Amino acid sequence: MGPIILKAAESQGTTIEDRDILVVTQKIVSKAEGRIVSLNDITPSRMACELGCDTGKDPRLVELILKESRSLVRIDRDRGIIISETNHGFICANAGIDASNVPGGDSVSLLPEYPDRSANEIRTQIEAYVGNMEISVIISDTFGRAWREGHVNFAIGLSGINPLKDYKGTTDTQGQSLNVTNIAIADELASTAELVTGKALNIPVAIVRGYEYAKLENGDISVILRDEIKDLFR
Amino acid sequence: MGPIILKAAESQGTTIEDRDILVVTQKIVSKAEGRIVSLNDITPSRMACELGCDTGKDPRLVELILKESRSLVRIDRDRGIIISETNHGFICANAGIDASNVPGGDSVSLLPEYPDRSANEIRTQIEAYVGNMEISVIISDTFGRAWREGHVNFAIGLSGINPLKDYKGTTDTQGQSLNVTNIAIADELASTAELVTGKALNIPVAIVRGYEYAKLENGDISVILRDEIKDLFR
Repeated sequence: MGPIILKAAESQGTTIEDRDILVVTQKIVSKAEGRIVSLNDITPSRMACELGCDTGKDPRLVELILKESRSLVRIDRDRGIIISETNHGFICANAGIDASNVPGGDSVSLLPEYPDRSANEIRTQIEAYVGNMEISVIISDTFGRAWREGHVNFAIGLSGINPLKDYKGTTDTQGQSLNVTNIAIADELASTAELVTGKALNIPVAIVRGYEYAKLENGDISVILRDEIKDLFR
Repeated sequence: MGPIILKAAESQGTTIEDRDILVVTQKIVSKAEGRIVSLNDITPSRMACELGCDTGKDPRLVELILKESRSLVRIDRDRGIIISETNHGFICANAGIDASNVPGGDSVSLLPEYPDRSANEIRTQIEAYVGNMEISVIISDTFGRAWREGHVNFAIGLSGINPLKDYKGTTDTQGQSLNVTNIAIADELASTAELVTGKALNIPVAIVRGYEYAKLENGDISVILRDEIKDLFR
């Protein structure tokens, strides 16, 4: 992925600068990593057939959803919705499996298997090329939310950046300690980038420049995923 | 609010330009609208006393949470968490009531009563001043989410902008119709602005410039709030 991004940036006259944040959309990473599957190659299990029948979904897609999930969180049979916890721990519809912007009428993209590793690989490749600079990489995907309509982009993997901005120990403008101590800046950066990359624009990477972030060599998306035991909504 | 924002912009040498999006944080709007309450003036009801005792929260704060809410969604007594649906329909902790950046040790800020109206007022005032330009206004606040750690900023009110970007009827790069049809750009814009305004920085307004959005004269945050009947997580 790194060389492709560098080549694309170069052809547009864009240079990478120190402390740039590259937000890379999931789809291009999945494509580069061969996470595209033809539904024709899938044989659904009995459970997938039943759930497919109940929800009106293609049983082969349901088979993939089950394979990519560690648990089912909600099923709405009437509206054909399957919300699961993916093997990574993301809670989303269809285990993040998606047919848009994938060539071949019957093909779908799965999420990258290890999005942090994907991000780290991209970062390492780009840093090796540009030399003497530190950058960070966020891999983003489009998520539905509880309670709110519309989708937004959140982070699914990262490298070189602390995904949480911790205000613990800092005070507000009145000298009082702050109520909200953790801002999920990785998700906010992913949302910011979506305004530029869009859904149908064929722009897979955005650069966020000038944002002061805390470097974290071994950043890890899992710190942004709430433990089930602490979660009031599953 | 409008004149204050214009004055602040002017004193910093910032001009407002056509189609700017002003993202205004909730706290400053609540202050301008007198939505600051001293807990000393609150007499808690019996229910507020009991819930306060159970959750370890100040009963006077609980009284305000109950007053600002149309229903309780989750209560975690052990960890002192009250998640409710506010009178506007937002699902969040403490009905959006917050003590940070509020002067006076016992004072808290309530959410604006009609955030769309607040946004509209700011927009009207600024458009009247700058003349012959169209701008839009988003009022933002900090939200916790289901499943994910860390808070992000989302929109709670708006004027002059369609909060949802609808891809219905458009096709992806492969000529197929898109799975995800609605992006909650108002929330993404609020998250983008948070990267600039921060929690402790005393920067209450950010300008987003150069983003192509669909104008909507009578924009309304309620379109972004999922109907209870369609919501799988309450």
